[in-house]
Amino acid sequence: MAEHQIVFDQSEPITVLEGMKLADAAVQAGIFINQPCGGQGRCGRCAVQVLSGEVRRRSTLRLSKEDVENGFALACQTVILDDVSIHVPDQDVLERRLTSSLSAHEVEVPSGYDYKRHQTLRRIPLSLPPPTMDDQRDDWSRLDLAIRQEVGFSSLTISLPTLRRIGAVLREGNWEVTAVVNLNNLTSSEGERSGTLIGLLPGHVPESEPLWGISVDIGTTTVTVWLVDLISGKVEAQTAEYNRQIQLGEDVISRIIFSSKNNGQEELKALVLKSINGLIDRACSKVNHQLQSESAKSNGSVAPKALCQPERIMKATVAGNSTMLHLLLGIPAESIRLSPFVTAINYLPVLTAREVGFQIFPEASIHCLPNVASYVGADITAGVHASGLDKTDEVSLFLDIGTNGEMVLGNEDWLVTCACSAGPAFEGAGVHDGMRATHGAIEEVWIDGETYEPTLNIIGDIQPKGLCGSGLISLIAEMFLTGVIDKGGNFNSHLPTERIRKKKNGWEYVLAWGDETKTGHDIAITRVDIDNLLRAKAAIYAGITVLADSIGVPLETVTQVLIGGSFGKYINVEKAVQIGMLPDLPWKHFHFLGNTSVLGAYQAILSDDSMRQIKEIANRMTYIELSADNSFYEAFTSALFLPHTDLTRFPSVTEMLEEMPHTLVREF
Amino acid sequence: MAEHQIVFDQSEPITVLEGMKLADAAVQAGIFINQPCGGQGRCGRCAVQVLSGEVRRRSTLRLSKEDVENGFALACQTVILDDVSIHVPDQDVLERRLTSSLSAHEVEVPSGYDYKRHQTLRRIPLSLPPPTMDDQRDDWSRLDLAIRQEVGFSSLTISLPTLRRIGAVLREGNWEVTAVVNLNNLTSSEGERSGTLIGLLPGHVPESEPLWGISVDIGTTTVTVWLVDLISGKVEAQTAEYNRQIQLGEDVISRIIFSSKNNGQEELKALVLKSINGLIDRACSKVNHQLQSESAKSNGSVAPKALCQPERIMKATVAGNSTMLHLLLGIPAESIRLSPFVTAINYLPVLTAREVGFQIFPEASIHCLPNVASYVGADITAGVHASGLDKTDEVSLFLDIGTNGEMVLGNEDWLVTCACSAGPAFEGAGVHDGMRATHGAIEEVWIDGETYEPTLNIIGDIQPKGLCGSGLISLIAEMFLTGVIDKGGNFNSHLPTERIRKKKNGWEYVLAWGDETKTGHDIAITRVDIDNLLRAKAAIYAGITVLADSIGVPLETVTQVLIGGSFGKYINVEKAVQIGMLPDLPWKHFHFLGNTSVLGAYQAILSDDSMRQIKEIANRMTYIELSADNSFYEAFTSALFLPHTDLTRFPSVTEMLEEMPHTLVREF
Repeated sequence: MAEHQIVFDQSEPITVLEGMKLADAAVQAGIFINQPCGGQGRCGRCAVQVLSGEVRRRSTLRLSKEDVENGFALACQTVILDDVSIHVPDQDVLERRLTSSLSAHEVEVPSGYDYKRHQTLRRIPLSLPPPTMDDQRDDWSRLDLAIRQEVGFSSLTISLPTLRRIGAVLREGNWEVTAVVNLNNLTSSEGERSGTLIGLLPGHVPESEPLWGISVDIGTTTVTVWLVDLISGKVEAQTAEYNRQIQLGEDVISRIIFSSKNNGQEELKALVLKSINGLIDRACSKVNHQLQSESAKSNGSVAPKALCQPERIMKATVAGNSTMLHLLLGIPAESIRLSPFVTAINYLPVLTAREVGFQIFPEASIHCLPNVASYVGADITAGVHASGLDKTDEVSLFLDIGTNGEMVLGNEDWLVTCACSAGPAFEGAGVHDGMRATHGAIEEVWIDGETYEPTLNIIGDIQPKGLCGSGLISLIAEMFLTGVIDKGGNFNSHLPTERIRKKKNGWEYVLAWGDETKTGHDIAITRVDIDNLLRAKAAIYAGITVLADSIGVPLETVTQVLIGGSFGKYINVEKAVQIGMLPDLPWKHFHFLGNTSVLGAYQAILSDDSMRQIKEIANRMTYIELSADNSFYEAFTSALFLPHTDLTRFPSVTEMLEEMPHTLVREF
Repeated sequence: MAEHQIVFDQSEPITVLEGMKLADAAVQAGIFINQPCGGQGRCGRCAVQVLSGEVRRRSTLRLSKEDVENGFALACQTVILDDVSIHVPDQDVLERRLTSSLSAHEVEVPSGYDYKRHQTLRRIPLSLPPPTMDDQRDDWSRLDLAIRQEVGFSSLTISLPTLRRIGAVLREGNWEVTAVVNLNNLTSSEGERSGTLIGLLPGHVPESEPLWGISVDIGTTTVTVWLVDLISGKVEAQTAEYNRQIQLGEDVISRIIFSSKNNGQEELKALVLKSINGLIDRACSKVNHQLQSESAKSNGSVAPKALCQPERIMKATVAGNSTMLHLLLGIPAESIRLSPFVTAINYLPVLTAREVGFQIFPEASIHCLPNVASYVGADITAGVHASGLDKTDEVSLFLDIGTNGEMVLGNEDWLVTCACSAGPAFEGAGVHDGMRATHGAIEEVWIDGETYEPTLNIIGDIQPKGLCGSGLISLIAEMFLTGVIDKGGNFNSHLPTERIRKKKNGWEYVLAWGDETKTGHDIAITRVDIDNLLRAKAAIYAGITVLADSIGVPLETVTQVLIGGSFGKYINVEKAVQIGMLPDLPWKHFHFLGNTSVLGAYQAILSDDSMRQIKEIANRMTYIELSADNSFYEAFTSALFLPHTDLTRFPSVTEMLEEMPHTLVREF
């Protein structure tokens, strides 16, 4: 057999036989390559870059097409065919690359965005004829007519607080003013168009000055605020923090219960407003800091008007689940929780910052995106729009999974949606050592297929405190693939490892011993935990199948799985497929879109047409209430196994199981 | 000459010669008959009722046609032709009759008022299908659709505060509810109609239960609130009190100046709201008191729901002058005062009680009537509508005179209006012993043509404190007719009375000596006072002539003079004609309409069509700015004399002067 010369970075060349795996060659060269999955080609952590020479890749799972084109290969799955030169990336860099591929891309301004055509909020410079003894029209008539003539609108409304200010501004500006107007019905014929005067500024605001808006996503866990220049369309700052309501309840149900007690409604409203208003301040500071450091570089100073102050923000769009929108607005949400599960309102009227409590320009218009049902909220209508699901001719699946899994199946012609109560298991609750995805959470687990020893990825690289949702999914998948548990979730007590042990409450698998953990206690997963997780994943998969069955579309025909929400940020899709939570579709069919809710809100703040499309999405969606659907219960029961009762639904998982000689898929 | 038997009430019959005056017969019979004008047939205070027998009336000034038909005659102007039986009315009764004829009649519901056809505020009983698992529409969609189907409207809006309540009310009423909706565009075709959900009540409100509204008139001096049952259309309570803003300024100008200082705007707003909200409480109490005393009579008790609470008032209309409306709404009014005298707004949007500060149902809609100009406000558009000026084919003059005189000339085809700054003389200011028409004010003066002794009518029948506007007008007229002053306002120092005297500051006429007054000081009118009053009356007459000239209509063709506002309540028209303030037209052409501003607001609260007509009036009115009009100055100068430079304009006054041999119309 031919011999080849192998060089790892600057190491001394070594000689190996053709056909040796790169991972083994690295061991021979004394180079450390991480293989948390035990060299099974599942984790992608052993990726190296082939700088020259020929290799054969047995598997490229976890590598993108671009990665392969750039020479990346999994050391455990790649055999040597030639003299090769290898670069071993720094593990940190590798981690970052893997992680960043899971998070949202930088936000791009929608192509073709034209403030003057798409934006409903307009700055209209006006030079008014001053009143004289021969022209004693009242201030408002004078202004109203001038604005309407300028934009060709038939009617304009004005609020009392704005009315109180116009006289002073008109005179301060010596009848040169800039009206900030929100236009409705941009697409209607002239006679039907109307608008609202939001504000009036003295003088003519230069076109170059930004016109600020914010897009807000209120998640049960995280609140996100994007600060947008409505002229350029650019997102100038992104901020996010935990929803402060968390302290009064982890999930929507507990918050609804809290809201119906005493002053609960008010408290919850105040907390989420504190989050939002804090984020608005932070976003403004970010922008100003950047402006100031840019001008410092050029030894200039920033004009005060160029700085962003919260009170200069004139428009907002808000997405979020139905409960979050109700709680934000102080609308009782009790009916969301109780059968037959209805919201108070899905299509919210345009409100003002003053009445909502956003600390921005008080008359700024607040546009809430529409809900569809109690558990399919504006986050989903926004997400569907942001994902493009409603405009594609391919059958596509949109998923947003947190405590509840919301899913939409459809294309440009039809849309069907449902929500399944996945329970809080994926958010770390209902699991003994579960926690949210914060510092100290185990977010990824690899189990060596031979030693059954785990490798843990911990958020913040500190000692572990517990398992978050993504960690739990990868743990279940790894336990299943390595045979620690069977397809029913039962432990294989015969395996040669002390990590599988029996305690008072039954069998469990220990991920970390007390002396390795932050808490000093062992971190383990129990049979009860596994059952909770199986129910959660089964609910999601069953929801997806019910959607597909309701339309009569086989799941295999889905060519896009669009994953929004925080879910996509943290979870390995193949793990989720391995446990049977997501349908077994080619890796390339899955697209992580990041926070599609705020993305949809961002698109809606830029364009009247986007807002209209989102309303259309809400209108077009057929909502299936799973708790009233018998087929859901059947689908759920079938999905309680790993990956599923019907293995033909998971061909890639079946194939993988068959490739693992040491793993017996049987009931223990 | 024939002798006749005369009986006064129960007195002994006396025998008199035919042709004797009733007044002289009364003296002979020892019966006291009041003759403050000295038997000149001007005051009407000697009216008696002829029960039987024939008399000849030389003059029936101050008596209506009905009075004469009922046998009334002026004792000083009536001669005996027969045996007659006379009733001498109690002086109090006479006063009351004379006074009540000057005040507003009881308010009649506009004929043909039909709540279901004319009223924009509707109570709509609804029986909604409760939500089920098969019908999970949100509460608002369910309600919105049901209401729109019921009233045939295309769109309905809802405020955030109402939105916060609907879920609870729907469930409290077990899906039987009554929606209170304000409808717009009642007259439009179905597709264009829209409405606002004002409130939602659990259960079906019985049709018999009142639906409350208020009509408000904010005068500079007096605030009036009428409580109206919008179902029957009846005014159930009328209340009025001084505008509490008076403490911060007597007239609109001083209030505007106050409003532009420090916290003035807020203080003025708070004060007028205190007046209005206090009146609302009083109106409700009045109604409840009546209900309770009625039911006590029938040994019943009033159902709590039948009682009127302020928070059950669901709609309001508001009239008032432009400044008062600005100050009520906290809209800066400074521009009203400064050339070129423009308001901030004439057509106010529909507002809510919450934002205006009316303490009624917070979402009640507040409809302000439209202004025309800085000094022709909603009180005038309301007044023109209430007076019917805009619907008559006769050339008519509408007058509302206070500090400013507002006047409208027109008919169904055209309307022209102006406002003249009459100054505060008619409100008692700018006159040494002037005061407002409160307790102790001399409101009517008669001067004996022979003795020059005055007879005073004092409000509250107490010792006099000063002169109010009506007192001043009647004083000037009496002084002129009796020759105390000449047509230029100069005193006739040669008359045999010590009441005409010269003091440091010039000549004056003493109405009451110090020992007869509340203050202990003499009450007198000076030359300076007279000049102020002449300027005030000249401004009003000049305004009227400018209006007539602008159209080319001779004043003589005016067949109706419609007098609204508080002016008509207190002033004798013939006195006002005698001094040349009002045009010299037949007495029957003058109509006192009382508070036409609140009357117009009342008509507007009942009927969408009235509201529309008032807006049309505001649109149709051609406003003439007198301060920019040269012809006004000429007319003003000509009107500075008593009654006018051109005596042919005042034929009846000329005739009266000619009938008074002792009065020399000359300059002294």
